[in-house]
Amino acid sequence: MERKTKVTAEANKQEIIITREFDLPLELLFKAYIDPEIIEQWMGSKAVKLENKKHGSWRLEKKDAQGTVVFQANGTIHEFVPNQKIIRTFEMDNTPFGVQLEFLEFEKLTEDTSKLNMHVVYRSVADRDQYLQIGMDKGVNMAHNQLQKVLEKLK
Amino acid sequence: MERKTKVTAEANKQEIIITREFDLPLELLFKAYIDPEIIEQWMGSKAVKLENKKHGSWRLEKKDAQGTVVFQANGTIHEFVPNQKIIRTFEMDNTPFGVQLEFLEFEKLTEDTSKLNMHVVYRSVADRDQYLQIGMDKGVNMAHNQLQKVLEKLK
Repeated sequence: MERKTKVTAEANKQEIIITREFDLPLELLFKAYIDPEIIEQWMGSKAVKLENKKHGSWRLEKKDAQGTVVFQANGTIHEFVPNQKIIRTFEMDNTPFGVQLEFLEFEKLTEDTSKLNMHVVYRSVADRDQYLQIGMDKGVNMAHNQLQKVLEKLK
Repeated sequence: MERKTKVTAEANKQEIIITREFDLPLELLFKAYIDPEIIEQWMGSKAVKLENKKHGSWRLEKKDAQGTVVFQANGTIHEFVPNQKIIRTFEMDNTPFGVQLEFLEFEKLTEDTSKLNMHVVYRSVADRDQYLQIGMDKGVNMAHNQLQKVLEKLK
């Protein structure tokens, strides 16, 4: 059965719930969020800074073939508990999208499967709706498909 | 006219808007949020860590007369623009209160007056309502009164 990311966005709320089950052991799923090389493989952006610790911070960057930066995002890491949770801020640079607060929880299902529970909180309903309008739900499913593909080679 | 902090909390929302005008120049109001010694005077807690910069972090601590820690809070600083804005996370340690995202905007009104616009976003409506239940609105007004009192000595 093909797995799919579920994005729940209740009307008039400033939050989104994202859940996805993976055919990956918990430790590999977590690795997908903390290893710069692996992040680049499934997200397509380079983690030019990634301090995996409480009160750390991070920065992603994507360049085109000419070396021009075409995407940048950054944030802080409020909390970091290996194989359990990451609480972080997220912002795309030079865009009208605001800063959001993300709660990522990593759950072991079986020895070979795991689940990501992500709760994203926005400054406003309008901020959140902007994300939905650009097809965020489809984008995150595609990214998670790629995550599965990249990480299962490491099993 | 005595100034008062206005706390707006719409029903079923996971956010609070806090505004307060101060009889202080903008620079002094901002100083109240970045100077460890001054923070201690109006908040009653010691800033044991306060990195006033983008991707910095902070920690507040209050001890009783016996030296026992009775209050601790911590967070990251997502964005820091002097005399304009601070975007930060906030969490009280060892409490059921969750992590919140705070947008602080500092506004010049006249040469001698300024305004704080604070937008706090919570993980859930229940999280926010917990804060209201402990009388957060009264607490923040008292704290701001104390801020005014401490800072006006520096004018």
